Amino acid sequence: MAKPPRKKTPARAARAHTATPGASPGLVHSPPGALAPDVRVVSYDADSIAEERLESLSGIAALRSRRKVVWVDVDGLGDAELIAGLGKTFGLHALTMEDVTHVHQRAKVEFFPTYVFVVVRMIHSHEPLEMEQLSIVFGKDFVLTFQEGKPGDCLDPVRERLRQGRGRMRHSGPDYLAYALIDAVVDHYFPVMNRFADRLDGLEDEVLGEPYLDVVWAIHSVKRDLLTLHRAVLPHRDLLQALVRDPTPLVGEDARLHLRDVSDHAGQIIDLLACYREMAQALIEIHLNVASNRMNEVMQVLTIIGSIFIPLTFVVGVYGMNFDAESSPYNMPELKMRYGYPITMALMALGTVGMLLYFRRRGWLKRPHNYRKPGPPA
Amino acid sequence: MAKPPRKKTPARAARAHTATPGASPGLVHSPPGALAPDVRVVSYDADSIAEERLESLSGIAALRSRRKVVWVDVDGLGDAELIAGLGKTFGLHALTMEDVTHVHQRAKVEFFPTYVFVVVRMIHSHEPLEMEQLSIVFGKDFVLTFQEGKPGDCLDPVRERLRQGRGRMRHSGPDYLAYALIDAVVDHYFPVMNRFADRLDGLEDEVLGEPYLDVVWAIHSVKRDLLTLHRAVLPHRDLLQALVRDPTPLVGEDARLHLRDVSDHAGQIIDLLACYREMAQALIEIHLNVASNRMNEVMQVLTIIGSIFIPLTFVVGVYGMNFDAESSPYNMPELKMRYGYPITMALMALGTVGMLLYFRRRGWLKRPHNYRKPGPPA
Amino acid sequence: MAKPPRKKTPARAARAHTATPGASPGLVHSPPGALAPDVRVVSYDADSIAEERLESLSGIAALRSRRKVVWVDVDGLGDAELIAGLGKTFGLHALTMEDVTHVHQRAKVEFFPTYVFVVVRMIHSHEPLEMEQLSIVFGKDFVLTFQEGKPGDCLDPVRERLRQGRGRMRHSGPDYLAYALIDAVVDHYFPVMNRFADRLDGLEDEVLGEPYLDVVWAIHSVKRDLLTLHRAVLPHRDLLQALVRDPTPLVGEDARLHLRDVSDHAGQIIDLLACYREMAQALIEIHLNVASNRMNEVMQVLTIIGSIFIPLTFVVGVYGMNFDAESSPYNMPELKMRYGYPITMALMALGTVGMLLYFRRRGWLKRPHNYRKPGPPA
Amino acid sequence: MAKPPRKKTPARAARAHTATPGASPGLVHSPPGALAPDVRVVSYDADSIAEERLESLSGIAALRSRRKVVWVDVDGLGDAELIAGLGKTFGLHALTMEDVTHVHQRAKVEFFPTYVFVVVRMIHSHEPLEMEQLSIVFGKDFVLTFQEGKPGDCLDPVRERLRQGRGRMRHSGPDYLAYALIDAVVDHYFPVMNRFADRLDGLEDEVLGEPYLDVVWAIHSVKRDLLTLHRAVLPHRDLLQALVRDPTPLVGEDARLHLRDVSDHAGQIIDLLACYREMAQALIEIHLNVASNRMNEVMQVLTIIGSIFIPLTFVVGVYGMNFDAESSPYNMPELKMRYGYPITMALMALGTVGMLLYFRRRGWLKRPHNYRKPGPPA
Amino acid sequence: MAKPPRKKTPARAARAHTATPGASPGLVHSPPGALAPDVRVVSYDADSIAEERLESLSGIAALRSRRKVVWVDVDGLGDAELIAGLGKTFGLHALTMEDVTHVHQRAKVEFFPTYVFVVVRMIHSHEPLEMEQLSIVFGKDFVLTFQEGKPGDCLDPVRERLRQGRGRMRHSGPDYLAYALIDAVVDHYFPVMNRFADRLDGLEDEVLGEPYLDVVWAIHSVKRDLLTLHRAVLPHRDLLQALVRDPTPLVGEDARLHLRDVSDHAGQIIDLLACYREMAQALIEIHLNVASNRMNEVMQVLTIIGSIFIPLTFVVGVYGMNFDAESSPYNMPELKMRYGYPITMALMALGTVGMLLYFRRRGWLKRPHNYRKPGPPA
Repeated sequence: MAKPPRKKTPARAARAHTATPGASPGLVHSPPGALAPDVRVVSYDADSIAEERLESLSGIAALRSRRKVVWVDVDGLGDAELIAGLGKTFGLHALTMEDVTHVHQRAKVEFFPTYVFVVVRMIHSHEPLEMEQLSIVFGKDFVLTFQEGKPGDCLDPVRERLRQGRGRMRHSGPDYLAYALIDAVVDHYFPVMNRFADRLDGLEDEVLGEPYLDVVWAIHSVKRDLLTLHRAVLPHRDLLQALVRDPTPLVGEDARLHLRDVSDHAGQIIDLLACYREMAQALIEIHLNVASNRMNEVMQVLTIIGSIFIPLTFVVGVYGMNFDAESSPYNMPELKMRYGYPITMALMALGTVGMLLYFRRRGWLKRPHNYRKPGPPA
Repeated sequence: MAKPPRKKTPARAARAHTATPGASPGLVHSPPGALAPDVRVVSYDADSIAEERLESLSGIAALRSRRKVVWVDVDGLGDAELIAGLGKTFGLHALTMEDVTHVHQRAKVEFFPTYVFVVVRMIHSHEPLEMEQLSIVFGKDFVLTFQEGKPGDCLDPVRERLRQGRGRMRHSGPDYLAYALIDAVVDHYFPVMNRFADRLDGLEDEVLGEPYLDVVWAIHSVKRDLLTLHRAVLPHRDLLQALVRDPTPLVGEDARLHLRDVSDHAGQIIDLLACYREMAQALIEIHLNVASNRMNEVMQVLTIIGSIFIPLTFVVGVYGMNFDAESSPYNMPELKMRYGYPITMALMALGTVGMLLYFRRRGWLKRPHNYRKPGPPA
Repeated sequence: MAKPPRKKTPARAARAHTATPGASPGLVHSPPGALAPDVRVVSYDADSIAEERLESLSGIAALRSRRKVVWVDVDGLGDAELIAGLGKTFGLHALTMEDVTHVHQRAKVEFFPTYVFVVVRMIHSHEPLEMEQLSIVFGKDFVLTFQEGKPGDCLDPVRERLRQGRGRMRHSGPDYLAYALIDAVVDHYFPVMNRFADRLDGLEDEVLGEPYLDVVWAIHSVKRDLLTLHRAVLPHRDLLQALVRDPTPLVGEDARLHLRDVSDHAGQIIDLLACYREMAQALIEIHLNVASNRMNEVMQVLTIIGSIFIPLTFVVGVYGMNFDAESSPYNMPELKMRYGYPITMALMALGTVGMLLYFRRRGWLKRPHNYRKPGPPA
Repeated sequence: MAKPPRKKTPARAARAHTATPGASPGLVHSPPGALAPDVRVVSYDADSIAEERLESLSGIAALRSRRKVVWVDVDGLGDAELIAGLGKTFGLHALTMEDVTHVHQRAKVEFFPTYVFVVVRMIHSHEPLEMEQLSIVFGKDFVLTFQEGKPGDCLDPVRERLRQGRGRMRHSGPDYLAYALIDAVVDHYFPVMNRFADRLDGLEDEVLGEPYLDVVWAIHSVKRDLLTLHRAVLPHRDLLQALVRDPTPLVGEDARLHLRDVSDHAGQIIDLLACYREMAQALIEIHLNVASNRMNEVMQVLTIIGSIFIPLTFVVGVYGMNFDAESSPYNMPELKMRYGYPITMALMALGTVGMLLYFRRRGWLKRPHNYRKPGPPA
Repeated sequence: MAKPPRKKTPARAARAHTATPGASPGLVHSPPGALAPDVRVVSYDADSIAEERLESLSGIAALRSRRKVVWVDVDGLGDAELIAGLGKTFGLHALTMEDVTHVHQRAKVEFFPTYVFVVVRMIHSHEPLEMEQLSIVFGKDFVLTFQEGKPGDCLDPVRERLRQGRGRMRHSGPDYLAYALIDAVVDHYFPVMNRFADRLDGLEDEVLGEPYLDVVWAIHSVKRDLLTLHRAVLPHRDLLQALVRDPTPLVGEDARLHLRDVSDHAGQIIDLLACYREMAQALIEIHLNVASNRMNEVMQVLTIIGSIFIPLTFVVGVYGMNFDAESSPYNMPELKMRYGYPITMALMALGTVGMLLYFRRRGWLKRPHNYRKPGPPA
């Protein structure tokens, strides 16, 4: 049987960063297989907004002086030179630049004197589960975002709100934009969570169906995905609490209030994940009980039939023996008795009835369960 | 077989908030399917009390100036405009208004300069388990409560105490009313807990009965409900401790003392939940032991009967062979022996007795257990 | 079969307080089924001691002025009026009075300006496990104790030491008496712990015996009791550490030192409980291994006997066929061979020996285990 | 069967202190069965050392004035009067004296103004596991040690180093001696840990051998011992960290540095214990897998043989029926067919081959495993 | 069967330090079997670098005065005198020297006034898992490193960067070199982690294959290795956080920033380890489900065949009885009926079909599963 092409397996998906151990830190290398970047610069203040594709780094300084906030939105990490240039332009530390290109970071926040560096993990809504690193750097008058460049992201609603000037985003500083981006990323987990709820509901129905080995695989695959998600989401809570509490002047009071709200959402997701993981574990337990019950039923059938017919077969075997009645009066005189056969049959019937009564008393003759979910207890 | 209409399943019940990810924060949208609100305004001081249905928001200002405390009791979140209007009237932050309408919040408390915002989860006493979000906002001279509008709540005793003027509620401020409301919500968990105690007691009896697969389902359904409850109750403890400890001037010393008491109750519920969950888990374990024991008994019956009669059937089969005694004196001379048949039967009886003795020594002939709970050990 | 009268089951025993949810706090109601109180007043100082039954509340003031410490020892909560009166006499907060009568409190300590309120859970030494709430209130010159009034308590040694004036109790204040009472309560857990050690030792012997389903029940009943105990004892540690550390002037330096000692004891009990719970869990695991081993043995017997005799029965069945040798020379010529019968028997014997050799090589013919505990490894 | 004399069982070994509950604190009672004490007094300073058996308490004062450090080394707690006398001589608190004689204390440290009281648990190197309480009291110029008096201790190397004057011990104060004693006690756990490593290695080999029930017992006995050890060792870490951090002037800077080192060792032991416990648990799991595999093999043998021969026996039974071919041409004409017998035999052979092919395709005809540990994966 | 030479087993690998308990601390002893040291001295500043083999300790002082940083790189602990000499030269505390030679330390950091002492555990990239202790001591102008001397280490990239003068290492102080060494050690764990990902992926395929007992062993061996790794890596996080936070002047601001980055990496490794351990545990669970499923299938085959043919064999046995039809008209008149044989056969066929229908309804006639991993759920 031809083996299918190797798909990305879960353990492989949980791989770690691939920097050469011992390499000098702070050197910006594009991650292997990185895509060519698509860079857009959005500059805005309360009154005006401009959106353009980045031509050269030198144009950025002009934009910074002209408008209140400049957002450089980098989608794709394939151009190490450009990223290094951006880092220099905005005065980023070498370690920050390194983290931007190492796309297996855990979510975290780091505070520098002139900027705040946030790494979050953006989830994609399609199957199978996929995540992408979004690095957000924001300072007094700029926001930089770097993503891996996988097709699609969850930031379009934020871009749209910026363009339309609704809400307070255009009136606020880079901290508010950063909040809006993080909020979009965190809220994007909720539809994925709902999909998990559906998968678990489906599995609860299936766990009683056939063929059940597939169900075990499906449950374990859900568990694995939940584990991966948990690992990704957990650090967001710490990150958000650090953003809320750190005394950095780069995050204003209003943004803090909103970030506290995002922190609540992250807490809710972690909560749901824990809950779903317990549910998946419970399904495994139910499955084991169902399997053990089936086994019991299979064996009961064999035992009932064997216990009745094996002794009977012995009895009829006795009267199938060829002892020579001619040679001795002791040799099977029953065979010549007038009611030998009917009596034998009657005795066997009696034995069978006795056996059945015994089995009924033991509760082995119950109708097999239909393995249906009972309703809620009365 | 026609599928029954889809009921609300546990995982679906654990769904998260449904705001569009990336939407602008602070916009008040009624949750989908929300009911039209029924709004009552109670205004009171030590001497007088008035209770009326809210006609227009403008009337509230008058009530606030006339009496010490105004309680706006909103039951149903279906009128986004009204809720936004209330928010404006009492000076609530946009994020507070958003949380009021997102009805899947975890219990929490947030302190604002002019008010305290508390979210608790109210339990309904009927089966199946249902919870409702109750948002409580209280300031210097007002209390706002918002609930989803599901039929029935547990606040009627508080309303009654207000009307009758018993106790100190009418003499105290909004903080005391908020305490009384939270207290009513938390204490309402206790009857539900007692119902769990009943369900667990019932299951302990049933775990030894038939047909036991249903018991597994029932135990797991209890476990699931306990998990849901635990997830709902746990944050109340933190919330209450924050209320007791936060230096906000909006909560007076006396209310704090009472809130500490509610915090004790919440701790007790969490404690009981942990205890019940361990009991439910233990029932699962007992069930597995019972199942493994049954299996053992089933197999012992088959083994005993098979081990006795299969060899005997062989023996009688031997003497059922048709070797031609005429052709050779070596062919089954036993068949012509005078005592061939009685001796054969006697030897088989002897073998059977030997087998039985062996089985008895192995302890396999014990009377089957009745699976009754033993009394406490002496 | 008549059902025995319903005994108090474990889940029911873990019931929570039964106050009407939403009721006004601070109202003293006797718990349902409470016994009429037996109230004794002991007043003492270093030189003298008086012990009398409480006649009227008014006499207490006189005693307080006459002697250094007055201990009002209330046994039974059936008289709400008396309890409310005592509360008024000693200036207790309404919430304290409520907690005194709600007898399902967790152990806790609360500090008030003029008194300290301690709730501990007193264990009874008989089977089945029973606990009783002991509320201790102590101030500058008084100690109040309230217990539910179940027959017997563990405070008699303290009463005796007071009467005899041995030790420093008569020379010390109410804090020392409170310490002595808590110490008596905590130390009373130790004999119960030793009984658990005995039960576990007994179960370790039994887990290998017959009929083993009862052992499972017994182990689970121990586990349940340990769980209940753990839930009861755990808060005592926090309580005691709070008493040791709180800066209240009502607890003197010497009493603190002694309370630290009690705190050690509580820690030791919690430790033992954790240890015993792990032991009980290990017994469950051993039991499962024993059960799986038995099953293996049962099946080996069936497999050995079946594998030997089922093929043999087939062989003898072959020569029991009635193919008519007259009609054709191909029809069972063996039946007429001179050595047909002996050769057939010999071949069957050979097959049997082969089978036995195979089983021995597989290790299935070992003597069954005696399920005895081995000694410690050499 | 005569029951062997009751050995000290694990649960019994985990017994708690046996003070009469409610007894007056601070009274020194020898523990039941305590041995008569062997008391040695070592007094030393940098230049000289004297070692003598304690004659009377009055001699101690002289020694204290003469030399820098006096170490009273009490081995055996059988003389309550002597211990009380020592307590009085060195100004120990009554509770300290009580703890010295209650030999089931957890390891702990207590700081008093004039002395530090340390309780550690000394392990004996022989089997079965045995521990002994060592109480160390050290002040400005003295060290008191109390042990239960079981034969042998692990302090001889310290005594020897004192006598020989090597290292800095003779130049340092009582804190350094106390450190050296604690260090000796903690380091003495390491050889015991290595013995556990040996036992686990041995069990890993045995878990695949026969008869395996004994292995379960052995693994559980290791787990139990590890549990007991864990319970004993865990508090040492807290104790040592308290000694390192507490601002008491009785512990000098140098001793603190050394104690930090001992604290590392304690951490290492706790670490190893956790690791060994996980290994033991994994062995249990492997054992269950081995047992389930064996069961599978046993059943496969029965199923293969049964599935082949039970149908064949039916077939030959058919031709063993005695329908009277004379009475009807429909009655078993096969019996008279020329090739009836060979064809029947051939068909049966064919069926058997078919069955075997089916079983091979299902993978049931594999050679049984030898249950050998595989080497490390390539 | 000859036993293979004893390999280093896991429990043995987890052995603890082997110092003689009670020995005087601070004495430098080479660990047993230690290799002769290979000592290289690298001295460098921004402009120049020299690398030489250590001839005598006296030369070090000259180097320290000539260049900014001196790195003494000791590979092999076999020369106790040399190590003690180095300790004296650089003013190290006796306890530090002791820890350097006790090669089973947990990773830790200790701050001394003139130096910082760091112990990390270096992993080797080959199989089986092997670790080596690397002790790093750095002060104002020197770095000392001690390793056990096993062939190969992961520090060559650092040495190379020093030689080539790329990056900032030559411009920075000993703290930066220490950072670079720790970073190289921590990053070297990543390739090992990836190997674990491969092993787990391979096992996920194999868990469904044959012969599965080996898979259990392989999974457990992975779990064991993950446990060992976890134990080794966990303390690195604390160590790094202590280095980042401790106010010691020996670690500069820039080095702290870089160390925070290493701390992130350590966190990531710990995270991955936890994730891999859960995956391995899940594989064990899947294996048990697969085994239980196989058992079910084996038993179903036996039950189906037995249930059909055992009753049939009884039936044909009945008509194989030899009751003498001559003696009585009641004796088996069927045998002489015209359609006796065809009717009997037809009835048996009917019974068989009934049985098969019953089994199909129970779902026992399904095609056996192929145990293939399903794709991700749709």
